[in-house]
Amino acid sequence: MHSKSPSAESHDWPVEPVDPSLAPQFRTRIDGKAKPLGALGRLEDLAVQLGSIWHPQPPRTKRATMFVFAADHGITAEGVSAYPASVTAAMVATYLAGRAGVNALARASHVDVRVIDAGVDADLPAHPDLIDAKIRRGSRNAVNEPALTINEARDCFARGASIVTEAIEAGTDIVAIGEMGIGNTTSAALLLHRLGAIPMADCVGAGTGLDEAGIARKLAVALRAAARSDATSPLEVLAEFAGYEIAMMAGAVLGSAMHRRPVIIDGFIASAAALVAVRLRPAASGYCVFSHRSAERGHDLLLQVLGGKPYLDLGLRLGEGTGAVMMVPLLRAAGAILTEMADLSDVMAGTLEPWPADRGQD
Amino acid sequence: MHSKSPSAESHDWPVEPVDPSLAPQFRTRIDGKAKPLGALGRLEDLAVQLGSIWHPQPPRTKRATMFVFAADHGITAEGVSAYPASVTAAMVATYLAGRAGVNALARASHVDVRVIDAGVDADLPAHPDLIDAKIRRGSRNAVNEPALTINEARDCFARGASIVTEAIEAGTDIVAIGEMGIGNTTSAALLLHRLGAIPMADCVGAGTGLDEAGIARKLAVALRAAARSDATSPLEVLAEFAGYEIAMMAGAVLGSAMHRRPVIIDGFIASAAALVAVRLRPAASGYCVFSHRSAERGHDLLLQVLGGKPYLDLGLRLGEGTGAVMMVPLLRAAGAILTEMADLSDVMAGTLEPWPADRGQD
Repeated sequence: MHSKSPSAESHDWPVEPVDPSLAPQFRTRIDGKAKPLGALGRLEDLAVQLGSIWHPQPPRTKRATMFVFAADHGITAEGVSAYPASVTAAMVATYLAGRAGVNALARASHVDVRVIDAGVDADLPAHPDLIDAKIRRGSRNAVNEPALTINEARDCFARGASIVTEAIEAGTDIVAIGEMGIGNTTSAALLLHRLGAIPMADCVGAGTGLDEAGIARKLAVALRAAARSDATSPLEVLAEFAGYEIAMMAGAVLGSAMHRRPVIIDGFIASAAALVAVRLRPAASGYCVFSHRSAERGHDLLLQVLGGKPYLDLGLRLGEGTGAVMMVPLLRAAGAILTEMADLSDVMAGTLEPWPADRGQD
Repeated sequence: MHSKSPSAESHDWPVEPVDPSLAPQFRTRIDGKAKPLGALGRLEDLAVQLGSIWHPQPPRTKRATMFVFAADHGITAEGVSAYPASVTAAMVATYLAGRAGVNALARASHVDVRVIDAGVDADLPAHPDLIDAKIRRGSRNAVNEPALTINEARDCFARGASIVTEAIEAGTDIVAIGEMGIGNTTSAALLLHRLGAIPMADCVGAGTGLDEAGIARKLAVALRAAARSDATSPLEVLAEFAGYEIAMMAGAVLGSAMHRRPVIIDGFIASAAALVAVRLRPAASGYCVFSHRSAERGHDLLLQVLGGKPYLDLGLRLGEGTGAVMMVPLLRAAGAILTEMADLSDVMAGTLEPWPADRGQD
């Protein structure tokens, strides 16, 4: 399954920053809408970001795709999860059957779901919603050796970016990223620890449901892995500690940013991928929409490191992209503030153009 | 326009409580879904409430209707708002043109909008989305006399309930309530003060954007109105201080509860209406879904009085139902957890039934 993409190594991930001079312009436009100043609260901040990303085009938000990246982790051999590694493949089957949490939530909010096999330790039957980008059947055990090779990490970037590129070229307006991978909160904790310079004990949490003894064991494992390498560059840190799904999500963030599209980041693990992407290309941060504050320990600190202010705080800690999916309606609402709301001056002057009855939200 | 509904006075608003013994049953069902225990956080609480309301039927969430109740307030003569009273009618025209914040947000989330003229001080032309339930052109000035007569208040209950009843009979699954009425944060503050026994200074806020001097003036006006009456029964307090839109929203809450449908409550003013409804029929509280924490001073205390825990905290303070509309996708997600997610046992045993490709969310 492994194929090294030659373009990945020479690719320079050209991300243009979102023009900061646009924000005051969009703020002024929003201030002129038919509402008291600031009355739409944080949706206005989101509208400013969305408008700036899409400028000079009006923002489009109709077609949203949730990309669920899945992979297995060699570090599960150390007993870092409450669930066996086989759950990764079982949950991928559940996504493809349309019966997992992310599917239910995505249908409710008109979001498409695509599943990426980035490195699941099982042979997965072909399915129209499954993208086969398997690098290897599970990463290596980061306690003993780098989880990924540098070339694998680069390959993941290229594949993540190209998956998103294809979707955008096929009409996706909103990219959202989520993941499945038993053991991947340990990976994400290692990335946060090393790239964010956060004490490991603040990075390691309950994951799918460890008790305090389990968390202590997981912390000890993470510390052993961290002690093995003093890498600090984003690509090396990624290769040392990541999983294939995390590396590919980082590529997806870069791909979205390169195409000037917003990318909704799910919880702790997706945010760790965003951290890698942003450390590699700081301009990518302007395209990231941090959806929710996960209940996983470490996520709050990770968001602080990223300067991200999440919009939802629902106590979710499922992953799969469930929090990012719940963010899609808010992003659509933010777009509609810019494109559909009347100006107060038109309301008061009686020069209001009605919204065409035959036009839906777009 | 005024017509006294004879049935209103004899109607006893029979609200059956949501059976509290259902909650543990739904909790157990949700615990068996394909996810770690509690991993969907507050969406699980919402699913328990929704399932219990609809039991023994599975919850339906497809068709949601936002009812925006509008009326003018005699107390605006005292200078309690940053905007002139004429804005009420201008904004009603904006809702009907589909160009206000609530319309933009509602289209983005597939929610229908209906506007109710409960007592706007203008002659409004007929429109297919406008329900004419005008009691009077604006309430009386509560500083000088009761804003509504007792019969008007009863009439509002009956009309609010019947508007919702008709919509439910026509297929609405989710009722959401919001409002427009320059001056109505003063009304809501008076209701919270009297029914919740909260000091007036904690109930009076900036509304559409008063400065501190404006808030002080509004507080003085509210204290004068409060001093005029020592009413404490919900119906009398409502008549003394409410507007027609608030009274009709209280009726809408009762109507939803009578038909065993969830009713999404918007911000400060809609919550004040819910408080009246719940004081009149405590069982109605089980049907209320408190959507968001408004930035209006007083809302947090009002939610505490109601025992409501909002799901969104986006700094909204627009009213119109904007926060309630943003809640609809969450309610749909909660329903989908119950109706569409697989059980973990089926995932692990490989006995998963795929979700039918030809079925959308319903």
